Order: sequence, then structure tokens, then C-alpha cells
Amino acid sequence: MAKILLLNGPNLNRLGQREPGLYGMQTLGDIEQRLQQQAAEAGTDFACLQSNAEAALIERIHQGAEEGVDMILFNPAAFTHTSVALRDALLAVDTPFIEIHLSNIWAREAFRHHSYFSDIAVGVISGLGAQGYDLAMQAALARLAADRA
Amino acid sequence: MAKILLLNGPNLNRLGQREPGLYGMQTLGDIEQRLQQQAAEAGTDFACLQSNAEAALIERIHQGAEEGVDMILFNPAAFTHTSVALRDALLAVDTPFIEIHLSNIWAREAFRHHSYFSDIAVGVISGLGAQGYDLAMQAALARLAADRA
Amino acid sequence: MAKILLLNGPNLNRLGQREPGLYGMQTLGDIEQRLQQQAAEAGTDFACLQSNAEAALIERIHQGAEEGVDMILFNPAAFTHTSVALRDALLAVDTPFIEIHLSNIWAREAFRHHSYFSDIAVGVISGLGAQGYDLAMQAALARLAADRA
Amino acid sequence: MAKILLLNGPNLNRLGQREPGLYGMQTLGDIEQRLQQQAAEAGTDFACLQSNAEAALIERIHQGAEEGVDMILFNPAAFTHTSVALRDALLAVDTPFIEIHLSNIWAREAFRHHSYFSDIAVGVISGLGAQGYDLAMQAALARLAADRA
Amino acid sequence: MAKILLLNGPNLNRLGQREPGLYGMQTLGDIEQRLQQQAAEAGTDFACLQSNAEAALIERIHQGAEEGVDMILFNPAAFTHTSVALRDALLAVDTPFIEIHLSNIWAREAFRHHSYFSDIAVGVISGLGAQGYDLAMQAALARLAADRA
Amino acid sequence: MAKILLLNGPNLNRLGQREPGLYGMQTLGDIEQRLQQQAAEAGTDFACLQSNAEAALIERIHQGAEEGVDMILFNPAAFTHTSVALRDALLAVDTPFIEIHLSNIWAREAFRHHSYFSDIAVGVISGLGAQGYDLAMQAALARLAADRA
Amino acid sequence: MAKILLLNGPNLNRLGQREPGLYGMQTLGDIEQRLQQQAAEAGTDFACLQSNAEAALIERIHQGAEEGVDMILFNPAAFTHTSVALRDALLAVDTPFIEIHLSNIWAREAFRHHSYFSDIAVGVISGLGAQGYDLAMQAALARLAADRA
Amino acid sequence: MAKILLLNGPNLNRLGQREPGLYGMQTLGDIEQRLQQQAAEAGTDFACLQSNAEAALIERIHQGAEEGVDMILFNPAAFTHTSVALRDALLAVDTPFIEIHLSNIWAREAFRHHSYFSDIAVGVISGLGAQGYDLAMQAALARLAADRA
Amino acid sequence: MAKILLLNGPNLNRLGQREPGLYGMQTLGDIEQRLQQQAAEAGTDFACLQSNAEAALIERIHQGAEEGVDMILFNPAAFTHTSVALRDALLAVDTPFIEIHLSNIWAREAFRHHSYFSDIAVGVISGLGAQGYDLAMQAALARLAADRA
Amino acid sequence: MAKILLLNGPNLNRLGQREPGLYGMQTLGDIEQRLQQQAAEAGTDFACLQSNAEAALIERIHQGAEEGVDMILFNPAAFTHTSVALRDALLAVDTPFIEIHLSNIWAREAFRHHSYFSDIAVGVISGLGAQGYDLAMQAALARLAADRA
Amino acid sequence: MAKILLLNGPNLNRLGQREPGLYGMQTLGDIEQRLQQQAAEAGTDFACLQSNAEAALIERIHQGAEEGVDMILFNPAAFTHTSVALRDALLAVDTPFIEIHLSNIWAREAFRHHSYFSDIAVGVISGLGAQGYDLAMQAALARLAADRA
Amino acid sequence: MAKILLLNGPNLNRLGQREPGLYGMQTLGDIEQRLQQQAAEAGTDFACLQSNAEAALIERIHQGAEEGVDMILFNPAAFTHTSVALRDALLAVDTPFIEIHLSNIWAREAFRHHSYFSDIAVGVISGLGAQGYDLAMQAALARLAADRA
Repeated sequence: MAKILLLNGPNLNRLGQREPGLYGMQTLGDIEQRLQQQAAEAGTDFACLQSNAEAALIERIHQGAEEGVDMILFNPAAFTHTSVALRDALLAVDTPFIEIHLSNIWAREAFRHHSYFSDIAVGVISGLGAQGYDLAMQAALARLAADRA
Repeated sequence: MAKILLLNGPNLNRLGQREPGLYGMQTLGDIEQRLQQQAAEAGTDFACLQSNAEAALIERIHQGAEEGVDMILFNPAAFTHTSVALRDALLAVDTPFIEIHLSNIWAREAFRHHSYFSDIAVGVISGLGAQGYDLAMQAALARLAADRA
Repeated sequence: MAKILLLNGPNLNRLGQREPGLYGMQTLGDIEQRLQQQAAEAGTDFACLQSNAEAALIERIHQGAEEGVDMILFNPAAFTHTSVALRDALLAVDTPFIEIHLSNIWAREAFRHHSYFSDIAVGVISGLGAQGYDLAMQAALARLAADRA
Repeated sequence: MAKILLLNGPNLNRLGQREPGLYGMQTLGDIEQRLQQQAAEAGTDFACLQSNAEAALIERIHQGAEEGVDMILFNPAAFTHTSVALRDALLAVDTPFIEIHLSNIWAREAFRHHSYFSDIAVGVISGLGAQGYDLAMQAALARLAADRA
Repeated sequence: MAKILLLNGPNLNRLGQREPGLYGMQTLGDIEQRLQQQAAEAGTDFACLQSNAEAALIERIHQGAEEGVDMILFNPAAFTHTSVALRDALLAVDTPFIEIHLSNIWAREAFRHHSYFSDIAVGVISGLGAQGYDLAMQAALARLAADRA
Repeated sequence: MAKILLLNGPNLNRLGQREPGLYGMQTLGDIEQRLQQQAAEAGTDFACLQSNAEAALIERIHQGAEEGVDMILFNPAAFTHTSVALRDALLAVDTPFIEIHLSNIWAREAFRHHSYFSDIAVGVISGLGAQGYDLAMQAALARLAADRA
Repeated sequence: MAKILLLNGPNLNRLGQREPGLYGMQTLGDIEQRLQQQAAEAGTDFACLQSNAEAALIERIHQGAEEGVDMILFNPAAFTHTSVALRDALLAVDTPFIEIHLSNIWAREAFRHHSYFSDIAVGVISGLGAQGYDLAMQAALARLAADRA
Repeated sequence: MAKILLLNGPNLNRLGQREPGLYGMQTLGDIEQRLQQQAAEAGTDFACLQSNAEAALIERIHQGAEEGVDMILFNPAAFTHTSVALRDALLAVDTPFIEIHLSNIWAREAFRHHSYFSDIAVGVISGLGAQGYDLAMQAALARLAADRA
Repeated sequence: MAKILLLNGPNLNRLGQREPGLYGMQTLGDIEQRLQQQAAEAGTDFACLQSNAEAALIERIHQGAEEGVDMILFNPAAFTHTSVALRDALLAVDTPFIEIHLSNIWAREAFRHHSYFSDIAVGVISGLGAQGYDLAMQAALARLAADRA
Repeated sequence: MAKILLLNGPNLNRLGQREPGLYGMQTLGDIEQRLQQQAAEAGTDFACLQSNAEAALIERIHQGAEEGVDMILFNPAAFTHTSVALRDALLAVDTPFIEIHLSNIWAREAFRHHSYFSDIAVGVISGLGAQGYDLAMQAALARLAADRA
Repeated sequence: MAKILLLNGPNLNRLGQREPGLYGMQTLGDIEQRLQQQAAEAGTDFACLQSNAEAALIERIHQGAEEGVDMILFNPAAFTHTSVALRDALLAVDTPFIEIHLSNIWAREAFRHHSYFSDIAVGVISGLGAQGYDLAMQAALARLAADRA
Repeated sequence: MAKILLLNGPNLNRLGQREPGLYGMQTLGDIEQRLQQQAAEAGTDFACLQSNAEAALIERIHQGAEEGVDMILFNPAAFTHTSVALRDALLAVDTPFIEIHLSNIWAREAFRHHSYFSDIAVGVISGLGAQGYDLAMQAALARLAADRA
């Protein structure tokens, strides 16, 4: 049974409360629940973690490798632009991942235009709000189906 | 009835023949046909153009504005990195658009890391191959449905 | 009889429709007609071309050289920032030209602050809207009169 | 009753022990106690946290928003130059804050000349040692008084 | 009655004597007299100052604001590239101004390609010699007429 | 008896009139008077100068050194970003000074992010409006008291 | 039978008329005829195109791939410095090519020092005037002979 | 009795499992055990910590200072390139340290060429795999012996 | 009779008092008197000005041109790095000049490594203290003698 | 009788042994012999030197000037990117030269993209392997023949 | 029998005399003798060269390749930052090497932070003084032993 | 008896023959002879060396230190911009030196604006032709006299 892990970085626990004009009104719980269901429908195992702590995310990635996670859906939030340690965690476990951003990072401050993840990601979905998670889930499921085929 | 326009930039007429390791094996015809069908199912008007000429794309954008196009799905290909004229065409007509790239542009040459479109796009989908078009279509349909609501 | 050629680059066919807050409400037809009249009053030959295609502008410059054009009034629009080929066309024919911009290019995105034309132009008029064309026509006529004297 | 939150970043728990020539001889406890008293005299609620962990500071900011903190006095220390996640936490809660540095950051290494906080702070006080906290408290109290007025 | 103020920066008192190949042979007196007359014909008040001292220009701008100057024609000369204080004076009084350069500043040393004024000017006329002042006067008169209309 | 000198740079004579949203509504006279009083209460000599001329400020600094000024409170305004000569004057006299900015210079144009003074200042207070002067005065008085102790 | 394709970019139709001090006095027709003859003598098929339109060159490269072109001799002229679309066309068809410049591009404006083609070319010949085409033809013929051997 | 502290940064808990081509096959446990033995043979106290959390490393450095650690052997891993807070911790305690990298950081991505530690380290050993730790231990023991002498 | 003009920029009136370790103990009066004498011995006219005001130096250069000054010895001090207006004054009058710095400007802050004067000076003497003026005077006298010969 | 000098820089004595995938299998002796013969056939004098020492190459250029060398064929190898002294030697003797590189320097490390010679060379041939020498010889002979004509 | 070659670059003949605070008090002779002995104990052939001449070092590397040198210990000294020719010599012979620096190059001038050797070295040891050579010898012996195993 | 050493770098043996417009018509022999005489008159020992080889100059500097040279007059020519090894030689021996350039290096190519010597020189004389050597000799003699005093 394939496994998908959804990871969300710092401040995303405030989703729905935080700058709704920029990030939308769904809460992270809403999104996690919806993806849980999509995974279940596709007969795929699903787990998720949001953390404001870089180390917790690193360790979840390590643990995922031991659990045999097949694909990570990852919104690194602010760590996108600063965390070489998370990049190294992903390089170390070699699990493919899709990078997701709620807002359009190229329409914001210049320091948000560089990501430590994009060049090693399968792909990137940015600016499509909470729907970006659904689209990433679909892309992940399609890849896992193709791999099984 | 909502209208969606799919635009593809230079060399995408060679899709399927061109560097399949990088761009996949579907032809552009396959993709256009599939999106036509998705639009039809959603009761949405659909049109498409691939061109190697910047001027043809600019003029199709102008014409789209006159036809009342509601959303553009745009893979600018090489023009992503060089065409201010296409950017200006999109600014001039003010039609929202989603930017699509087949390959992961951040895993390639440094000059491909900058886009003249991303900061004015609704969102960007990159590196997810031909499926990227389907995901963009979904995002477009969801936005149009939301706008109608 | 002296000859003046007015060239306008991409998207200027939408003038009057396009971002009126930025570019004003006159159409390009209005402007061309007014300059035609000013030229006629000064006993000067006048021709004009707007094109969204770089090649069409290049070839009009070549043809102008064969027709003996004495001065070009040129609003390169988006090509200002990207077209070495148009720069080379102007260098090749050695016809003096005045660069015109409707909007103030220094009050906009950073990539609009560099022009491939300004250093080889006679002069530049920027930010004075449609009147900029009239002022450029006056400057051209004054130069041609001075050259004849 | 207005609420002020004092936050101190990494290594500031060593204040008084750490490079006294650069940072002075008062301990952080001395400073926190003095500000507590100033707040009390002004009839203002006061809380404080020092942490070496970015996540703890982020979560204190979130919690502050829920407690209705009116103003943050923040010495981000080394996080000044590296933490987009803390910047995002402050943007997310939209609580005004004053940035404080004990030493003169412009007289030190070049990488200390950039702050991820200054452009979104109310103001910055730098190089005035432990007194900088007292001055920031005064500025905060004055603002809160003005807002009430 | 509308008021126009012409300001000229350092070394322009030497106009006519200074590098005639670059700046032409008219003196500043000639130009000021001509613009005086144009203003008079348009029923507009006119005043002018040339100074080699940044402070004198700043104070003339302040005084202009008190006199109700409607438009400034400004050739900042060398101060174009170095004076934030003059930029601030113009920002402080909020009087619209047109920037004028006799020579083509983009055909000269790299440090002359940046202006502290262009992004806050109404527009810029450069490289058209002494006639640039006349064209700027026309643009100013047209704007004032439009404002009155 | 200790002596404090307050220096204000160009355009600050317009304080209260100039962009009140950015700089507040107090006049410079109000501020100077208040600081005069604070100094008097602390038994400290006080003098002040505002000038739009760099040379006047340089010479006041020289004269201050001869008068035995102990501390300068300095808002260099636009000279912050351009005046090496004022930097050299301060280096020459070796009088300690505190740099003050009314507005938050990091929230403004990029060229305002560099100061020729900060690295040689005792400290910097920025973005706290007219109260910044009062805080700087306190810091100066505390330092002078500490030096006497 | 091996096939060689000669491609020339914008403004090269003016060769012989255009800046002879920089580009020499032979016309493009002279050169094409001479290379035609050299190819014939070597028993090699030869075709050529000059175009001022990027799209025409892109499409000729695509068509060349279908015709089985073995080697392209390419003077991209101004497109050297601006056309990612032509680079992508060459990457897409994977036909080896030799880059030719009539003038010495390193002795000209800084923007001419970068080529979008050199790193993917077999080799580059620059600054040797019209003879550069003959030398490139020789190199091409030698490579084709070596490949056949 | 001298004390040496070995610190390892994020992801090094995966050593032996993580990219063995790049980092070798020894586990961190193997290395720690070997260094423990070398220290014991030299009559030196030894302690070690690996953590994925920046704060844990900072606090171990603080605690080390209180325990009287004489030398730190430090492989900051990804924190090499991002952690000013760890740099500040080392500056705060003033304990000499040797920086170790398993892989050759100059043969990897450009962002790995800069270290926030090298300029304040005693020395750096990079690219010599797990043996780098043994060599660093030797250098540390030699320095401690020399200091005692 | 040849004429030499010695100009000294801001803060040099403090010479002898100002940072003697950096600038030496001679006063500017001592130097001016010595050069006066050297000029007299060579039968050359001599004049000098020190000013803290850019405008005063600009106007002295203008006046010098009218007096027929043959050579300027110029220590622009801080204006070296900031004054385009003084550069323009020297370009306008076309009087040859030798640039002098008391201290070694390349051993100081990075912003002192660029001069707006060196590329248009006859030559530069830097770091040789007050003797630099004597050497520059010799060079000037030798040039004037050679010109007369 | 015309004279051609072939110069080869450091490590080229290893040609044929050194990285054959990059530089080919011919030895430098093979190439020198072949060019000797080509020169003899054209009735031209020929000499050559390979050296790993910059000074030996400089002095051979000086000596060439005294022997009346008409053209230098120069592969500066690694000195391409580092030797201002060789550039100065060529500027000093003013002998025209053609720059040759065996490999495609733009497909290699970034520091190989800059040459201290290209802007002062007649032309450059790069990436065409050992044949590049033959092509350069032809270009040299053609130029010498044209000069004699 | 394995062979190790020790190479030392310019000015290292002055070791012990040269800046002892920075480089220590051992002479190069002391170091060479000690390494000779270590190699002998390990049953390994050893040779060494110090030269101030780049060409002598290049040729020693070439000769080493012919002698079958297995590993080079290399302190390029100042050539670290400037010699592409030495880099090319090492690339040409493909002998593995360890880069050694006596001082901590990251604690010195910015131009010393870049090495033309590190990215192609096995590893780098910097800042550990003369002991760095001993550590490099150990690393070399370990590698040779591992290769033999 | 004081000793002065004159060193001249590459291509200066061609002085008088080499680009006389730029470097003048005196030969290096003329200059050396004249300085020899000046030294003799001042009762100072004098030696000189011109070399095109960096190593020869390095070794002359080392030898000078052993001979007790008190001051070096050094025209590094092209090595000014490239030789860290010569910089290190001068740092190693700690002999003060004056840097001389015949031409005005700031009026030439951008890469000539940086010197590896100026920041560690006593002073610099540039652009004053052969007289620059005489002036440097005077400065050296004055310094030696002052040191003896």
C-alpha cells in the first residue's frame, strides 16, 4: 500500500486566521481532512505533520523514510528560503516530493523568489491557494499509479 | 458561457519528439484534445494556439480579450525568460492566467530560473509534465465556478 | 523633401484600450493622424508603422533606409528592454532617431529602466503621454530644418 | 488593560556573561525585571520570553495574538539576519513591534547589516546597550497611550 | 495665474562656454529669456534660478511651494546622480516637475545612467539640447491648461 | 557643564508641513524647544542647528569640537546616504553622536538602507517619529552621567 | 549524402551595405554562393536561410531535423544575445552546429559578450569576417568525413 | 583534565545510511566511539552530541562553557551555511573549535561554499570523510598539549 | 606667467588637528605657504582655496578658467567619492589637474577606493602625506616647463 | 617574406596525453609540424614555442617584434584567464594575433568564459580541436596575402 | 611502492622567517624532513619541491605523472587564488591531491576565500599550522593503504 | 648606509619602444641611471631589477630583505592586477614600498583599477610618467632621512 506524507512548515497552523487576503480562509485542518479522504479513496496511506520547528520536520522526514513513505507533499512555508537542513534531510532520504505554496511567491518580497527545494523537487505548485494541495495530491497519486503500472 | 484559452510558446509543436526524457511522450495534440474535452464537460468554451512567433501569441491574447476570454492557460516555453512584449500583452488585456511548465525550470540552467510572467500570474505549475495542463485546467474551472458563485 | 518615419512597437495597437491610467485615452490612430498633419504643415513626408512583430519593424527600418528616411520617431514599447536585433537594424542604417515612451519607465519595474536604444538615440522623451509624440516631431523638424540650413 | 510582550532571541540568556565589551554587564533578568516594573507603573500588562529556539518564539508570538498583545519589544539577536519564519509569524499576527539591538549592528560583520524585521517594524533602536530596552518600552507606552487617546 | 519655476543645477552657468560639442552654444541667459517669453504668452508666471549650491536649490523649491508654484522645470545637472536632498525637497513640496538634460546621459559614463529624480518626475526629456527646455515648457503649459479645464 | 549639540539636515526645516503621514505633525521648533528644556533640567548645555547646506553642518561640527561639545544628536536626513564629508567631519572631531531618523528608513527606497554614519555612531534610533529625539536625548544624558561617574 | 544548413539571423540581409568597416564588403549572396560551391565539391547537400524573424529560423531548424540535416552553420547575429527560443530549437533537434560571428563580439558592447549558443555549439569562430563562414564549412566537412569514416 | 566536546549538526544521525557515495559507510556511533577512545588514551575528557535542532546545539555550547570545555570539534552540517545563532553561541563562549566536513563542500552547490564558522574557527578539515574527525582530534590534542606545556 | 591653483576640499581646514596619525601634523597653512614659495621660485603665479562647500570649489574652478589657470593641484578630500558636480566643473573648464590624497585611500573603507576624479586627472599621488603636495607641485612645474619648451 | 609565430601556453606540452576526451589525440609536435608545412607551402616563415612559463612567452613575443613577425597564432591555454602581462606584451608589440582554444571554453567552468585576449585579438576560434590551428593558419595566410595585395 | 609528492608554492621558502604570528616558527626544511620520515616508516616513496615559479611546479606535476606519483600534498600558497595553469596541470595528470594551508584563509582578505583547487581536491586542511602537513600525510597514507586493500 | 631597491615588472624592458603615447620615450635604462645618481647624491645604496618573471621579482624581494633594503620603489606593471604571490613576498619581508605607475591606470580598462599592492603600500604615484620614479625616489629619501632623525 502506497504512503503519502503531507508536511507543512511554520505558521501554517494559523491558516485561515493569518492574512486571509493572501492565504485564503480554509484552515489547515480542513485541508488535511480533505487530503486524508482523497488518499483513502485512492487506497493510499496518508499521514501529516505541521510544525514550526525545523528539527521536527527533519525528523518526520527521517521517520518517513523508515516507514517507506513514497511521496511527500511539502509546503515548507518560510523554510523554503532558509533551510539547508531540510533540503539535506530530503536529499538524505531520497523520497520524491512536490513543493506547494499557497500564495504566489514571485509576487512578494525578492527573498521569497529563491527556494532551497525547487531544484530537487518533482515539481512546484504555487499561488493556487488551498486547491494547490488537492492538485499536488492528484499529481502524487498519478505518479504512484504510474510507478505501480 | 465561460471561455478558456490555452496558449503554448515556441518549440512545443515538437512535443513528444523533443527530448522525451525532459518533456515526456505525449504530443501537444493529445494534450489539447484532452483539455478540450475537460472544458466541454464543464460546459466551458475552449480555444488553443501554439506558435513559435511572439507576435502571433500577442495578437491571440488581444483577440482573446475581445472574445471575452475569462482565463488563459499559458506555457510560454522559452519566451518565459525573454518576452516583455507578451507580459505587456497580458497586462494590457488584464485576463487572469496560469503559468505552466512541463519540466522543472529550477533544475535547469540559471537563466531559466527567472520568469517575466510568474509575478503577474494567478499561479504557477512546474515540473509535473503533461499532467500540469490538466491540473491548471482544474484550477481554472474552479476559479470560474467560484466567480460565478 | 525630408522624410520622417514613426514606428511603434508591440501592444501599442491597443492604445486607448490598454491601461488608460498608465497610457492615456488617445488611440494610436489619433496620434498618427496628428503627426501626419504636423509633417504636412512642415512640408515633410511622413510614414508610420505599428507592429507586434520584431521582424516587421526591422524590415521597415531597412526599407526606410532605402527610401531615404531622415529621422525616425520610435516608441519600441516592450522591445525597448529586449531587442538587440532592432538596435542592430538602427545601427545598420545609421538613421538618427528619437526614442519615445508614453509612461515614465523609471517609475515602473526595474527591468524597464534599461533601454537598448537610449545610448544610440538622438534623445529620449519619456512619461509625457501622447504629447511626447508631438514634442518628438517638433524636435525632428527642428533638426531637419537646422540640417538644411 | 494594554499588554506588552518582550521577546529575546538566541544567546541572550548569556547576557552579562557574553562579550561584556560588546553587550554590557547587565543580565537579561535585570532587564526583564526593570521593564516589568515600568510596565506596572504605566498600568500595562507585561510578559517576556527568551528562547534559543525559533519555534518557541514563533509560538509565543501566535499565543500573544490570542492573548491580545498590543505591542512586542523584540531583540531577535542572530535570528535578525536569518529567520523568515519569525518575520512570517509577525506578519501573520499583525502585532506592531519595536526592534532592539544591544550592539551597533552596522559596526560589525557585513551579514549583520541586513535585518528581516526592520522594514516591517514600527522602529529600530540599535547600539544603545541595555538602555535600548528602556527606550523601546517608553516608545511602546507612548504609542499605546496615543492609541487610547 | 499659474506659476512655473525653472531650476538649473551646477555648472550650467557656464553653458555656451562649456563643451559646446556636448551642450550646444546657447547661453543659459538665452534660454531663460526665451522661456520667460513663452510663459508670458501663455499668461503664466515664470521664475528661474541657476545655482551651483545644492542648498540654494533646495531652498528655492521650499520657497516655490510657499509661492504656489504649479510646475517645476528642472535640469539637476550633476546633482541628478548624487542629491537625495533635492529629491527629498521635491517629495516634501509635492510640486510636479519635468526633468531635463541637455546631453544624452545614456551615451555617457555609467554613473550618469542613474537619476535620483526620474522615478518621481512627471517625465524626462534628454539629449535634445537647448530645445529640450522649450519642449518641457510646452508640456508644462499643456498640463496646466488641462488641469484648469 | 556637559554640552549637547542637536544637528538636523536638509528639508527638516519643513517638518510638520512635509509629508505628515511619514514625518508627523510636530515642527522642528517644537522639538528643539522640548530638548532644550530636557537638557536644562539635566543641567546640561544645549545648542542646535538645522541647515540645508552640508558645509554649514560640517562647520558647526568643527566649531562644536572647539566649544567642547560632549555628544551630538544628529538627524542627517538625506545626507545620511550621500555625505562622506559629514562623516569625515565627525571622524575628525571624534565627538560621539547618536543617529536619529524620524521615519523607518528600511521601509523606504533601497538607497535609504545605507547610512554613511551608522557604523561610526554610538547608536541609531529610527522610525519612532519625533519621540526619537527625546529618546536620543535620554541616551545622551545617561552616557554623560555615566562618564562623569 | 550529408546535408549542411546555413542559417543567418537578423540584419544580415544588409551585409555589404551595413557598417562595412565592421562587417566587410561581401554580400550574403556572395557568401551563400561560395559555400554552396564548397559543399557541392565535397559532395554534400547544402541549403540556407536568412531571416529577420526568430520564428522562421526556429521552424527552419525543425524542418532541418525532419530533412536529416547533419550540421548547421549558424550566425545568430543579434539573436545570439537574446533568443532562448532558438537555443531550445537547437536543443530539441539535437543537430550539431558551429556558431559564426563576422565581427569580434568581445571588442564590442558588454551585452554582446554573452551568447545563448556557445556552450551548446560544437565550436565558435568569431572576428574573422566572411572567411569565418569558409572556415566553419571546412570544419563541418571534416567532422562529417570523420563521422563517416 | 582537558575536555573535548564533539558536536554534530542536522541529518548526521543518518550517517552510514545517507548517500554513502558522498558521506561514507561509517555510522556516527562508530565515529563517536573511536574518538572517545582516542581521548581516553590521551587522558582527556570527552563528550558528544548530535542534534537536528539548532537550539539544542546552542545550549550544549553554553553548557560546555560552564563545564570548562577546552576545545570543540564541530561538524555543523547544513547549519554551516545558515546559522548565525550557532556562530554567536561560539563567539559568546569563546571556546576554540575545529570545523569538520565529511564531503568536499567546494565540489558541491554554490551555497555550500560559504561557512558562517570558518573565519572564527581554529582551522577547517573538509572532504577527508570520517577520517577528518580523527585528524581533528589529533589537532585538538596537540593544541591542548602545547597549551599545557 | 604660468598660474597654478591649489584647491583643498572639506575638513582640510582641520589639518594638523584632525587624526594626526592618519594625516600628519602640518597645518594647511604650512603647506600653502611652502607651495607659494616653490611657485615663486619657479616664477609661477600661485593661488589657493580650501572650502567645505562644494559650490565654492566649483566657482573657484570656473573663475580659475577665466584667470587662465594652467594647472590645478587638487585634494578633493571627501568630495573625491561623491561629487559629480566638481568633476563636471573640471570637465567644463578643461584645466589639467593632479589629484592628491594625504592618506592611502586604498587602505581605508571600501567606499574610498573609488574616485570621481582619477580617470580625468593627469595623475594621482596618494598616501605620501604633506610631501604629496610638494611632489605634485614639482610635477606641475615640470609639465608647465615642458609645455613652454 | 612574411613571418608567422605559433605560441602555445601551459600544459599544452601534454597534448595527446592530457584528457583526450576534451583535447583530442594529436600531440603538439604533430600540429606544429603540420603548420610548418602549411606555412612553407604558402612561402611564409614559421616559428613556434610552447612554454609553461609566462615570462618565456612574453619574451618570445618581444623577440618576435624585433624579428618582424607579422601574425601570431596564440593558444594561451590557462593564461587566457589570468595573464595581464601577456596581454600587455601583445599590446606593446602591436602584432596582430588569432586566439585559439582546442576545447569549447563556454561549455566549461565559469572562470573560463572570460579571456584577457579576445577583445584585442583579430578573431577567436574555439572548440574545433586541433583543426582550429589549421583554420587559424588559413585565416592568417589570407590576411597576409590581402595585406600584400 | 606508493609515491607521495609534496609541493609548496611561492614564499614558503621563507617559512619560519615570514610572519611567524601567522605561519608559525618551523622552517619548510623541518616539515619536509618530518614528512620524509613518516613516508619512510609507511614504506612509501617521497619527494618534494618548493618553488616560487609557477612553471616549475607545473613541470614537477607533469614529471610526477610520469614517475607514477599516487598522491600529491599541495600547499599552493598565493597560487591558490590565481593559478588556473596549476589547476590545469592537476586536471591533466589526474593525480589525486590534498590541499593544505598553514593559516586560516577565511580569516584573511576576501580574495583569499576563493581557491582554484578546492573543488578538484580530495580534501582541504586549513589553519592548523605545520601540523596540517602531518595530518595530510596521514590522510594520504590511509587512502593509499585503502586503495591497496 | 640606507638601501633603496627599484623593481620593475613585465614588459617594462620595452619602455621607450612600447606605446610611447601611453608610456613616454625614456628607456628604463635612462630612468635607472638617473635614480642611481639621485641615490648616490643622497649617500644611499641603490639596486634595481626589471624582470618579466614573477619568481625573479619575488626572489629579489626576499634577497633584498636579507641585504637590509630599507625601501622598495616598485612598478609592478601587469602584475599589479594579478600577483598575490608578489603581495605575499612584500608582506613576508615587511619592507616598506612605494607603488609607481607610468600611465593613469584609472583611465584604462576596468581590470586595471584594482591593485593587489596599493592597500599595503606606503603610497602610490600614478600617471605622472617617468617623473613618477623621481618623485617616488624623493619620497623614499625623505622617509629614510626622517627615520634616521
